[in-house]
Amino acid sequence: MKKNNKEITIYDIAKELNVSPSTVSRALKDHHSIGKKTKKAVLKLAQERGYQPNTIAASLRSNKTTTIGVIISWINKPFISSMISGVEIAANKAGYNVIISQSHDNYEHEVANAQALFASRIQGLVVSLAMETTNYDHFQQFVQKNIPLVFVDRVTEELNADKVIIDNFLAGFKATEHLIQEGCKRIAHIGGAQHRNVYRERREGYLAALKQYNMEINEDYIIENPALSSEEGHRESEYLMNLPNRPDGVFCANDTSAVSVIQYARKAGIKVPQELAVIGFNNDPVTTIIDPPLSTVTHPAIEMGKLAAMQVLGYKEHKEIVRSQTIVLETELLIRESSSRKKYHPTPIV
Amino acid sequence: MKKNNKEITIYDIAKELNVSPSTVSRALKDHHSIGKKTKKAVLKLAQERGYQPNTIAASLRSNKTTTIGVIISWINKPFISSMISGVEIAANKAGYNVIISQSHDNYEHEVANAQALFASRIQGLVVSLAMETTNYDHFQQFVQKNIPLVFVDRVTEELNADKVIIDNFLAGFKATEHLIQEGCKRIAHIGGAQHRNVYRERREGYLAALKQYNMEINEDYIIENPALSSEEGHRESEYLMNLPNRPDGVFCANDTSAVSVIQYARKAGIKVPQELAVIGFNNDPVTTIIDPPLSTVTHPAIEMGKLAAMQVLGYKEHKEIVRSQTIVLETELLIRESSSRKKYHPTPIV
Repeated sequence: MKKNNKEITIYDIAKELNVSPSTVSRALKDHHSIGKKTKKAVLKLAQERGYQPNTIAASLRSNKTTTIGVIISWINKPFISSMISGVEIAANKAGYNVIISQSHDNYEHEVANAQALFASRIQGLVVSLAMETTNYDHFQQFVQKNIPLVFVDRVTEELNADKVIIDNFLAGFKATEHLIQEGCKRIAHIGGAQHRNVYRERREGYLAALKQYNMEINEDYIIENPALSSEEGHRESEYLMNLPNRPDGVFCANDTSAVSVIQYARKAGIKVPQELAVIGFNNDPVTTIIDPPLSTVTHPAIEMGKLAAMQVLGYKEHKEIVRSQTIVLETELLIRESSSRKKYHPTPIV
Repeated sequence: MKKNNKEITIYDIAKELNVSPSTVSRALKDHHSIGKKTKKAVLKLAQERGYQPNTIAASLRSNKTTTIGVIISWINKPFISSMISGVEIAANKAGYNVIISQSHDNYEHEVANAQALFASRIQGLVVSLAMETTNYDHFQQFVQKNIPLVFVDRVTEELNADKVIIDNFLAGFKATEHLIQEGCKRIAHIGGAQHRNVYRERREGYLAALKQYNMEINEDYIIENPALSSEEGHRESEYLMNLPNRPDGVFCANDTSAVSVIQYARKAGIKVPQELAVIGFNNDPVTTIIDPPLSTVTHPAIEMGKLAAMQVLGYKEHKEIVRSQTIVLETELLIRESSSRKKYHPTPIV
């Protein structure tokens, strides 16, 4: 992918000034609720970076409503809501509105969503597949009518459509390698449903890291958790922590289960990270609330959403994006206290 | 409101068995990923409670796609996503699909959302107003075309439409009264934008409780935080904790700011709840992750969404719901460690 001069959004300004996006939005409109100092800082940065307000207002004035649809599993996952933000940033900039529907990881709901969005005459569709879905016929109507269709994060090889994904294999490898480098000898993995690309590839990365470092692969330490929910995470922690030779490290395929592991360890009097190093996936806000703060893998979720919307719209400044290609984005390890055994436990652990 | 025999949903079954809704959904379909024991427990409870699968599949087979729209501020707030779940439960049961759009608390986005949903020919609309909105003309097209319009949580008196709200005044009163009963003498309030009903009424409840217990009202302790975000919460904690006579209790209008207060206090070496009792609002999942666990006020968010959808649909089993009425639901105090001074500090505090 060619690097473009990235256009600045209110989200970038908000991040840089450590205020909320709504504060930036209001400051730019000279809203009475925002203090002078904040307004000045926002305007200065916006000018420096060449901020351009989005064209949604202009599109409203022209009375032309153009809409792209999004189908995702659950809106209450931070990764998903960030991804949707990315879709909205790119879509709004092009004068498009975004409507969203949830599949609840359920195949029938996904089919109903696709029909409802098709019936509402959307100009394009961004999809992250439901956990259950293995038949993709409900997307054929979009292909047939030449309505752009892009899959993001949870994708399928069975349709000839654009895809935006992260390198899940490498992410799983790096997370596991980090635990090995922190001195963990018995590393467990709590993974998701193996028929979905993201969870299968994270596990493959975990296995590859163990092999590369000549570590034993113990099937007792490898769990498939179809929902990766908090309650299932608690149950699996109980199982893992009561094994005769319990793990001293866990790589979890999401932060929700990693938080459950820390909570279980705390109750059971197992010290994190000294006796159990934990790393999650997604960088959900909860990772900095839990004690100790959770090491994790970051997705470029907003960027993924933006790229998906740009592919849908053939966005004019991104002409290099062609149909039926796959964009693969990198992830990043965020090392925090939950896995930093060397820093918090300087003597070697055997 | 007449009490109906509440129909059981997969959410109820999930809660009762302490598993995720997707586990229940899969168990009911005999999915291979679910263990025998879980399947048996789900089927038993579903039968006992007379669970009826929703009619979305039937509506798909009849090839009649009917959709209701939802406009909310931000999908990444747990209260909002639960409310949307409620809308979906009731809508799906009646064979309707739900599409969602975010206003980002921005007036122009809300107008664009309303136009996009109107253009997509929805059969009804559920709205929770953007923080900024003070003009409601964009909803007139629905009133004129006789498309059912229901406001939920953040409402306006300026349109003749149905409303589903909670008793914010009473909730604010009860939260403040609880802090008084725990021995707090100097109670601060971090509130939201005062032109929105929910935040104005929570503050009025706080003031009424102080008056009723003959406590001084100190303007220095009362904050209006337009975004109620984490970063603003940190800034306000710093301000409050550095006052010459710093507060010994804080009632926050949302959990996000209450969590910031606890995090700030922890860094500053101020003991929660002994030196500072904290209570939030919403019962977000983070309330049980933060240490100490956060006392809060629960919304019946799913119920609010269900009732809003039922009003939109004139749902056949709820004929007692008439147009242009307001349904007011009660909230509940959830007392946890962050405000329990008597339990954790048994000697009286002066």
